[in-house]
Amino acid sequence: MNKPVNQAEFQTPVVTTGPLPASTKVYTHPAADPTLSVPHRSIALHPSANEPDVKVYDTSGPYSDASVTIDVEKGLPRPRTDWIVERGGVEFYEGRDVKPEDNGGATGRFLAREFPVRNTPLRGVGDAPVTQYEFAKLGIITKEMIYVAERENLGRQQAVEGAQDRVDGGESFGADIPAFVTPEFVRSEIARGRAVIPCNINHGELEPQIIGRNFLVKINANIGNSAVASSVEEEVEKMVWATRWGADNVMDLSTGRNIHNTREWILRNAPCPIGTVPIYQALEKVNGVAEDLTWEIYRDTLIEQCEQGVDYFTIHAGVRLAYIHLTANRVCGIVSRGGSIMAKWMLARHEESFLYTKFPEICDIMRRYDVTFSLGDGLRPGAVADANDRAQFAELETLGELTKVAWEKGCQVMIEGPGHVPMHKIKVNMDKQLKECHEAPFYTLGPLTTDIAPGYDHITSGIGAAMIGWFGTSMLCYVTPKEHLGLPDRDDVKVGVITYKLAAHAADLAKGHPAAQLRDDALSRARFEFRWEDQFNLSLDPETARDYHDQTLPKDAHKTAHFCSMCGPKFCSMEITREVREYAANLSDNEKATLYPAEAEKGMDEMSEKFKELGGKLYLETE
Amino acid sequence: MNKPVNQAEFQTPVVTTGPLPASTKVYTHPAADPTLSVPHRSIALHPSANEPDVKVYDTSGPYSDASVTIDVEKGLPRPRTDWIVERGGVEFYEGRDVKPEDNGGATGRFLAREFPVRNTPLRGVGDAPVTQYEFAKLGIITKEMIYVAERENLGRQQAVEGAQDRVDGGESFGADIPAFVTPEFVRSEIARGRAVIPCNINHGELEPQIIGRNFLVKINANIGNSAVASSVEEEVEKMVWATRWGADNVMDLSTGRNIHNTREWILRNAPCPIGTVPIYQALEKVNGVAEDLTWEIYRDTLIEQCEQGVDYFTIHAGVRLAYIHLTANRVCGIVSRGGSIMAKWMLARHEESFLYTKFPEICDIMRRYDVTFSLGDGLRPGAVADANDRAQFAELETLGELTKVAWEKGCQVMIEGPGHVPMHKIKVNMDKQLKECHEAPFYTLGPLTTDIAPGYDHITSGIGAAMIGWFGTSMLCYVTPKEHLGLPDRDDVKVGVITYKLAAHAADLAKGHPAAQLRDDALSRARFEFRWEDQFNLSLDPETARDYHDQTLPKDAHKTAHFCSMCGPKFCSMEITREVREYAANLSDNEKATLYPAEAEKGMDEMSEKFKELGGKLYLETE
Repeated sequence: MNKPVNQAEFQTPVVTTGPLPASTKVYTHPAADPTLSVPHRSIALHPSANEPDVKVYDTSGPYSDASVTIDVEKGLPRPRTDWIVERGGVEFYEGRDVKPEDNGGATGRFLAREFPVRNTPLRGVGDAPVTQYEFAKLGIITKEMIYVAERENLGRQQAVEGAQDRVDGGESFGADIPAFVTPEFVRSEIARGRAVIPCNINHGELEPQIIGRNFLVKINANIGNSAVASSVEEEVEKMVWATRWGADNVMDLSTGRNIHNTREWILRNAPCPIGTVPIYQALEKVNGVAEDLTWEIYRDTLIEQCEQGVDYFTIHAGVRLAYIHLTANRVCGIVSRGGSIMAKWMLARHEESFLYTKFPEICDIMRRYDVTFSLGDGLRPGAVADANDRAQFAELETLGELTKVAWEKGCQVMIEGPGHVPMHKIKVNMDKQLKECHEAPFYTLGPLTTDIAPGYDHITSGIGAAMIGWFGTSMLCYVTPKEHLGLPDRDDVKVGVITYKLAAHAADLAKGHPAAQLRDDALSRARFEFRWEDQFNLSLDPETARDYHDQTLPKDAHKTAHFCSMCGPKFCSMEITREVREYAANLSDNEKATLYPAEAEKGMDEMSEKFKELGGKLYLETE
Repeated sequence: MNKPVNQAEFQTPVVTTGPLPASTKVYTHPAADPTLSVPHRSIALHPSANEPDVKVYDTSGPYSDASVTIDVEKGLPRPRTDWIVERGGVEFYEGRDVKPEDNGGATGRFLAREFPVRNTPLRGVGDAPVTQYEFAKLGIITKEMIYVAERENLGRQQAVEGAQDRVDGGESFGADIPAFVTPEFVRSEIARGRAVIPCNINHGELEPQIIGRNFLVKINANIGNSAVASSVEEEVEKMVWATRWGADNVMDLSTGRNIHNTREWILRNAPCPIGTVPIYQALEKVNGVAEDLTWEIYRDTLIEQCEQGVDYFTIHAGVRLAYIHLTANRVCGIVSRGGSIMAKWMLARHEESFLYTKFPEICDIMRRYDVTFSLGDGLRPGAVADANDRAQFAELETLGELTKVAWEKGCQVMIEGPGHVPMHKIKVNMDKQLKECHEAPFYTLGPLTTDIAPGYDHITSGIGAAMIGWFGTSMLCYVTPKEHLGLPDRDDVKVGVITYKLAAHAADLAKGHPAAQLRDDALSRARFEFRWEDQFNLSLDPETARDYHDQTLPKDAHKTAHFCSMCGPKFCSMEITREVREYAANLSDNEKATLYPAEAEKGMDEMSEKFKELGGKLYLETE
């Protein structure tokens, strides 16, 4: 099933570079550490707007910086390695040799080319603090903490200054969102376990980012080849492409052969955190026979990936032997790949999962590299019929216990969540997760709010994602239109990312993030003033917005027209509203007072009289 | 700007006909009136499923009945005319002549061809009951009520029979959803004003349908040409196309020339209720100069459209002179076309809106034909910044007063709602509407939950639509991907309809409609059992689901494969789950009791001991 990879034919991955329309990469330097350069995207508006550029959160890395030359064969620069070495407690070491089974035994023309550069891995030494959690508990503010605070603060000064015009606190359901994000606030949230910065010490290319309920809602895009489709080149571009459109995190879910080499190409070119599910690769190492998996093979796989720089691991340690039979009467059984692999292993051996029994050892390994736990929901519902059942919640309770173990070991933790959940059952998931998992960040897949729309599951799940993001989920794992049907291609990745970006933003707005509405308002002003170019440029997907507009009004002149093809020139309501403003501007205070509410009430009284004359029974209660 | 319409070139509209995949049109005959034939769609499953066909609510009319020959030049049969004549209180009369201004003065090659058949219009006589509201108040159950009850009851018997397996009441926020919908329940809901059946007595082609909080959530698709794009042929096909994919209602929002003739072609071929905004046509009659509008021109337009058979009118009678200045400081002012036209008229004349002052006369006209009010929200917010402001709510309060007037006059009423509303402000819209408008059905556009994603506003609004549908909105007006950017084409209409269909269904599930989950469960079982064909056929859009699957696994053999390209053959979790079922089936009750919860707890105790040995500080509260 694996595609042959001819070394001669192996192409350097071609990735998408260059700024988005009207955008410039700008860097700011936090007061707490001016040596840091924190990237943002600055969108220029038409001069007629007489408004400052709109700065937006930027996940796209150096690829969108017109001044940077990208060389995928070399990978991105690794400035973060200096931060880590500088603060000490780590050592360079030889690291593990790449073994044939790391690439599923692929050889010859089936083996994807190795990444050309080999970096010596770092690991923690002894009991010295390595993880962000450990530093936070010790009261130490790291460069990563300063960096993410700067990213999160974007626009807040402007929002605070404009607050006299428009104050709206949102409804945060008990979250504790500050007006400004200080490095100390970041530290305290990490120390409480309420936030994580996934940042393996071997991922020097990383632009750190924070995931937690009191920060902006983040999104994750899944990429990865499967045994029947896709190549290394495609996957590297998918990662770059996903971050270009707003993916905060990317999970490489590759299966099949060449997993090691594919991942190395991705990591060395990734400005965002990369997550994996190590059991997938471990299973390839035993030729897909779940019952042949061993703790030793799994442990070796963890170390392999820790050394490469993977930032978070999905580990389905909550799928216990005792819970498996609880799924037997489900409509869709166990739909998590990791969950079903471990279930098969446990059933074949009638033995507790090694992910559970060896959990402390797993913590010890991950701590040395600061790999964040993403405790997997192996028993998540795969149909709305199975939502919130005993199997799902039994596992969630176990994940809560494991969270405390991992914290005790010094690790960062987030918790994965469902899945398929009808709307009225979403909030209880959030509330139960907060309670059982002690406010560790929740990271949910959707949830899909109905099962009847394959082909549109980015939307069935975008509904659930926006809601659970509002309720308190810290990161939303995207779903593409191809969910349940096939491996997403580049276009699907983009649609999935944009859909989840808008869902996350809707959640930020509803939670009352101080600066969230600045972009909405800038875009709405552009819309109102017929600044079509600004409307396109401020949107999450400027290319599609422009393309849709041009399908009916392609001429350049239409970009300044005071109408669009929906209504045509005579009917434009926005044009008419301009006249309203003139009228209102000329009203005296006295006239305003007369008009409203007094006149309105007077009008109703008159009308009431009139109807009484007509029917005599006005305002009687109807049956 | 109008396209020339060469009579010789005028084509008979080509509409899409034939059944959807694996589907058959079936008709049932209500016990209360077996002469009625109520259509449903029956989806056949693969024999291996060993399950009955799945019946789904069918909005597609005769077009999807393989046994019906469609002739767009003749229009659909008009069986409903007999029902109306039979119950009396109506008269045929000559009706109004079509005037040149009805088609915007289009002549010669600019005039679209008239529909070939002319029907003599009906109107109510004297005080005899005409509207469903009047019959309901008199305790009379009409054929329309029996018909809609039969449609709504679909699957409820099956759901009740299966309730021992799966009972879930949902959360209906105070709605009163019965296990079975009886004609008497329909009557009582209409009499209370909580539901409407939009059904002009001159729309004999109609398959009636009910809109109300205690019934399935309905959706509306907007079509209509504008002055710069589209033709009669395209619009007729858009109507057929929209209902094929699930639109319960269609609004013809045409502007520009040929409005009368376009509408006639649509109505004579429409199995669904058709709504309009009469002020659009009235404005064309005065060449687009709002201040030239008069009550007489508007009244004549109402009668013109009543005679044609339009089922509901959007009337922005709540936009009062006193409220206009409240919009002056908005980010997006007045975005409703109807609202802005009337605002312009009022400002130019400094006079109260004739839609408000003449409201009783409007009621008298609409009652004679049983045209349902859709009281328009002319001051709805056009940006999240403007949501729930005083202008919006002042109008809503006035709509509540007008609702009572219209009921008193014997008319059916629904209320239009926003618009652009961030998630945390949605529910207050619903609650306030229920209170102010005395539970008259709410009919909302979206709402859009953020402004930053033009090109994806079907999704930004689908999120809000699913939520407000759950909270109690009776009908959701779709938004297409082209919203704010251009006139939707056929593909956009389909995407908009499917998106809103899934949002409405998500709402039905969450509200706890008794039979709503049957389709989800049937599809999920098909998914679990790798019945790919059934999975496609049960989905809202079988064509897209199949197409997405075939992009990576095009072979027929893959339609029975126990995997897809997302995971490949070795990793399929559903396959593994089959083994879990075997295992669970072989567990004794004693083993089950041992496994859970006892064993789980035992495990945790052991682990707890282990960690205590390791660290001695396990389960301490973190900071």
